[in-house]
Amino acid sequence: MTEFELIQRFFTGMPKGADVALGVGDDCALVRLNDQDHLAISTDTLVEGRHFPEHYPPGWIAARALGAAASDLAAMGATPVGCLLALTLPQADSEWLSQFSEAFRSCAERWSIPLLGGDTTGGRLQLTVTVLGRVDVSRVLLRSGASAGEDLWVSGKLGEAAGALKYRLADPESRYDFGEQGPISRLLDRYDMPAPRLALGQWLLGRASAAIDISDGLVADVGHLCRLSGVGAEIQLESLPVSESLSLLYSPHDVEKHALYGGDDYELCFSAPVHLRGELSRAPYQLSRIGHLTVGHELILRREGKAVKPSGSGFDHFGLVPGGHCDVI
Amino acid sequence: MTEFELIQRFFTGMPKGADVALGVGDDCALVRLNDQDHLAISTDTLVEGRHFPEHYPPGWIAARALGAAASDLAAMGATPVGCLLALTLPQADSEWLSQFSEAFRSCAERWSIPLLGGDTTGGRLQLTVTVLGRVDVSRVLLRSGASAGEDLWVSGKLGEAAGALKYRLADPESRYDFGEQGPISRLLDRYDMPAPRLALGQWLLGRASAAIDISDGLVADVGHLCRLSGVGAEIQLESLPVSESLSLLYSPHDVEKHALYGGDDYELCFSAPVHLRGELSRAPYQLSRIGHLTVGHELILRREGKAVKPSGSGFDHFGLVPGGHCDVI
Repeated sequence: MTEFELIQRFFTGMPKGADVALGVGDDCALVRLNDQDHLAISTDTLVEGRHFPEHYPPGWIAARALGAAASDLAAMGATPVGCLLALTLPQADSEWLSQFSEAFRSCAERWSIPLLGGDTTGGRLQLTVTVLGRVDVSRVLLRSGASAGEDLWVSGKLGEAAGALKYRLADPESRYDFGEQGPISRLLDRYDMPAPRLALGQWLLGRASAAIDISDGLVADVGHLCRLSGVGAEIQLESLPVSESLSLLYSPHDVEKHALYGGDDYELCFSAPVHLRGELSRAPYQLSRIGHLTVGHELILRREGKAVKPSGSGFDHFGLVPGGHCDVI
Repeated sequence: MTEFELIQRFFTGMPKGADVALGVGDDCALVRLNDQDHLAISTDTLVEGRHFPEHYPPGWIAARALGAAASDLAAMGATPVGCLLALTLPQADSEWLSQFSEAFRSCAERWSIPLLGGDTTGGRLQLTVTVLGRVDVSRVLLRSGASAGEDLWVSGKLGEAAGALKYRLADPESRYDFGEQGPISRLLDRYDMPAPRLALGQWLLGRASAAIDISDGLVADVGHLCRLSGVGAEIQLESLPVSESLSLLYSPHDVEKHALYGGDDYELCFSAPVHLRGELSRAPYQLSRIGHLTVGHELILRREGKAVKPSGSGFDHFGLVPGGHCDVI
């Protein structure tokens, strides 16, 4: 049983409250605020040795935790309201806390997600960040809104954070500063300092029919979107957006593997009607059309028109390799 | 440096957002929903071996986690809206998950706090529960509203959960079912199944001037209330409400120690103007007037009129004994 199946089995079907517009299963839950706005809320845990390496600098832990959580707001098109931080630490180390809180503050300011409160406890290093946002009731982006026939799009470049992982595991603290624009540094930046696509998510309101953030890997996350929308998908492998940095460091086979199955991209994957192709191509964001949605339940990958079997799955939060992040309840 | 001072140092003074009515420092943060309502939100982490014993049954872990978090809503007078659960588990054990989710569901129904969403990760057992509630902007109970001259009240009986701890540590799984109404069973019920005072919190809206829930121990929590209200307090030791069960099992000295410094009571401590004494005495809740608030910053304990020095402090979340719970960011 995968983590996803496990949680599904025990935690779905719990009673919903009167104010709850959307419960377990999407990037965020939605609570009715008033006739116009929903509150979007999501919680994400990062565990040392699982979601980030041991001896990983506190500033990057802060950036990754808040970035991953904020990415769930982006996927709904929500505007951030604030966040809560539950921090578990082996000891109260003031140097560590100083670096952590400085980075947390800096990200909170950059993304306009003020710290509202939290909790601190002693134990093995891990942290849970809960984010809150507001989103228009009538335009909120759900995983369940896609229809067969629509296009499938992704933002940015895929697989860079996954490509960074082996360098980061080999040396958790280094910036690899040999040439500031070197390909390894570029990949590590994607891993160490994710950039939640908050502005893009808001721009997609009224344009995208469904959206999800790519945290467990493209194939896994497209799978979630398809399952909740009741559709299948076809992805053209030639259309996957990958960076020059990734291609310089990996074989074409590994580039494709990272782009399809690597976690931690924190890009948005969304569906949109065909008639919006022109508008989306001229968007002030880097967007790539990678396929389309189909009747049925299958996810098919195509290379030069020929179907290719998926060879992996997404990040497993019970696995041992530090990596991606997802929402399972 | 205590945990409280540590967090104060690094996490207060972060910028507040436009929607944030109250940030770090109270039982809950408050976010403006509209002219009439605030959203109250709070997060609490429970770590195995620190906030509950190893081999502690999953149903009680669920009850304690949701109860402790809901108690923060009670302290603000908020009506629950829902909760999020971030669960970290060493393995996906379906028997454990079945018992845990069943108890969580049962408490969520009893207290009307539907599960909105969450996250599950692999690691050492711990859980973070985030609760959301609604509360009237004009009447919300804060820690900072007390004035010198007002009475200090507590609900229920104090020190029972602390008195249960040695029995629970000696045998984490037993119900001690020798005589259902035996004093040990009564104490253990208080530890294993906290009852957040949600109805009382709402009844106190418009009556209490300030409130806090007693999670770290009376002395520690009165200290928080006084600090944020800019007042001192005097507590009459003869007035502390203690149960017969506690008195049967402990010496008078230890009864007093548990009532003053024991964590996990999840009762409410609140201040109210003197003219409400009659109304509060006739309340449909068990309320005890234990002292009054003073000009200054001191917390003075009095036995038969004579000042007594406090001999302990509250629960330390970096300590080693499983016990209470508090909000420190």
